[in-house]
Amino acid sequence: MRCAILGGSGFLGRHIGRSLAASGMEVWSIDRMLSAPGTAPWLAGQVHADCFDLASWWDEMGGAEVVVHLASSTVPATASEDPVEDAQTNLVGTLRLVQSLRQRQARPRFLFASSGGAVYGRPNTVPLSEDHSTLPMGAYGATKLAIEHHLRIAEAQFGLPCRILRLSNPYGEWQQPHGVQGVIAVFAHRALNGLPVDVWGDGSVVRDFVYAADVGSAFVAAARHDGRARTFNIGGGVGHSVNDIIQTLEKLLGKRVERRAHPARPFDPPVNVLDIRLAQQELRWMPQMNFEEGVAMSVQWLRTAP
Amino acid sequence: MRCAILGGSGFLGRHIGRSLAASGMEVWSIDRMLSAPGTAPWLAGQVHADCFDLASWWDEMGGAEVVVHLASSTVPATASEDPVEDAQTNLVGTLRLVQSLRQRQARPRFLFASSGGAVYGRPNTVPLSEDHSTLPMGAYGATKLAIEHHLRIAEAQFGLPCRILRLSNPYGEWQQPHGVQGVIAVFAHRALNGLPVDVWGDGSVVRDFVYAADVGSAFVAAARHDGRARTFNIGGGVGHSVNDIIQTLEKLLGKRVERRAHPARPFDPPVNVLDIRLAQQELRWMPQMNFEEGVAMSVQWLRTAP
Repeated sequence: MRCAILGGSGFLGRHIGRSLAASGMEVWSIDRMLSAPGTAPWLAGQVHADCFDLASWWDEMGGAEVVVHLASSTVPATASEDPVEDAQTNLVGTLRLVQSLRQRQARPRFLFASSGGAVYGRPNTVPLSEDHSTLPMGAYGATKLAIEHHLRIAEAQFGLPCRILRLSNPYGEWQQPHGVQGVIAVFAHRALNGLPVDVWGDGSVVRDFVYAADVGSAFVAAARHDGRARTFNIGGGVGHSVNDIIQTLEKLLGKRVERRAHPARPFDPPVNVLDIRLAQQELRWMPQMNFEEGVAMSVQWLRTAP
Repeated sequence: MRCAILGGSGFLGRHIGRSLAASGMEVWSIDRMLSAPGTAPWLAGQVHADCFDLASWWDEMGGAEVVVHLASSTVPATASEDPVEDAQTNLVGTLRLVQSLRQRQARPRFLFASSGGAVYGRPNTVPLSEDHSTLPMGAYGATKLAIEHHLRIAEAQFGLPCRILRLSNPYGEWQQPHGVQGVIAVFAHRALNGLPVDVWGDGSVVRDFVYAADVGSAFVAAARHDGRARTFNIGGGVGHSVNDIIQTLEKLLGKRVERRAHPARPFDPPVNVLDIRLAQQELRWMPQMNFEEGVAMSVQWLRTAP
């Protein structure tokens, strides 16, 4: 089975590609960045292309039975700053891609990485199950949600099979510590370098974290799933506060981590934890990594990262 | 109070404009079509413009305290045929408009005509209340829903006040009988001309119809509403089957209407009726027109239409 990963050179793309290859698939990465030679040995090939332009990569890799869509030009903060650009690039881009598949009568299974942190909005109940109301609080979540709807519709109307994976906060090796996302990598990097970490409010805000290799195995399961459900929460299924992260790092590093305090951000919901029972039942998937061990893997990678 | 109606020359735009003007507002129409001189005496002015391009109309009319957004380049069928074009024109267009308001620091109240027939998808319970799950079954509904989310977010993030009116199926004078929407106008026109009407399935499919002048008074109420709710169903609140419509026409015309039978369409939910209690409570709005009388108004207009 041949699989195209749109955004296969990034942090998540590497984990998912490795997992899919280990499950026996021929994995190609479609990305605007190429992985350096030798750094992604699980790949059968790479195409340097705009992943939303099907013609620029489909034939070159010989088509695919599975398309994993991880590509995004934005993060929540940049999407809020320029919602036009976010919708234009990511939503309209995905629709163009789907339209091209439709015109070629190609029907690969389409696996989409959505966001369990962004599509639900403020939780009414925790943990959040897939049928919780979806009232995104930012443009990033609104775009993810719109793509979800269009994929569901594309399956119903012209038979493009899809699975939607609503990820919580992935972390692990290859996560870059200089971005605006990825609090574990950012904090670990700063702690390793003796720098203070930024804490908004009292550090009690709770989020769901999922080890990126566990996300990889969720995509493997979703690629082969044949039940009726289409949308799955993929998370750790338990919450960790910002304070938990800091304490875990202090324990791992054997030293105190300095905090830089900022006022609480009113738009941060106090808790976001995903209910992952549907994925357990339907995908036979369970996150395997223990939190402390996973953070240790991140720290270890950051110690030796190029 | 000055009001801009985006799409003010169309069927709904005329009803809403007339209602807003009767309530004391200075009403301008922004449209790519101009109403013929004398046919829209309630208008203070018209600007022939692309309504999504704020610079092309905002200053010319001297700005607005209320913007009524009725503009759409698609209907459900055309949106499904080309979801890229639908999202590009209507969603990205609306986001561009909102972005321009944000950049000018203009904060008019933004009233958006969404679709109670398209955003919910297949009903779990009837009548549909505003907190029913939103799983649109077509691109048209997905775009309407995405615009709703972005407007909610724009209010939270930069203070553009909005009200979202989820309309059922409006009907009444000025509704053209040659479109793919507007079953009452289409059937009435065909019946008047002795032509058969097209019925898919057994005619038992039930929909919610709302007289367009009642939609006008809902916009008047929404323009002045100061409660916390942002999203309102605006419908008749009762269901009428396709057979009901035909029987009503037969009674009004005093003759039999011939039916042309087609197979049922699997994507048509059997029932869609809106729960309008929130609008009753918060907007103090109630549809005033009785169904049979409203259909008679449509028939009367079609008899004399140019």
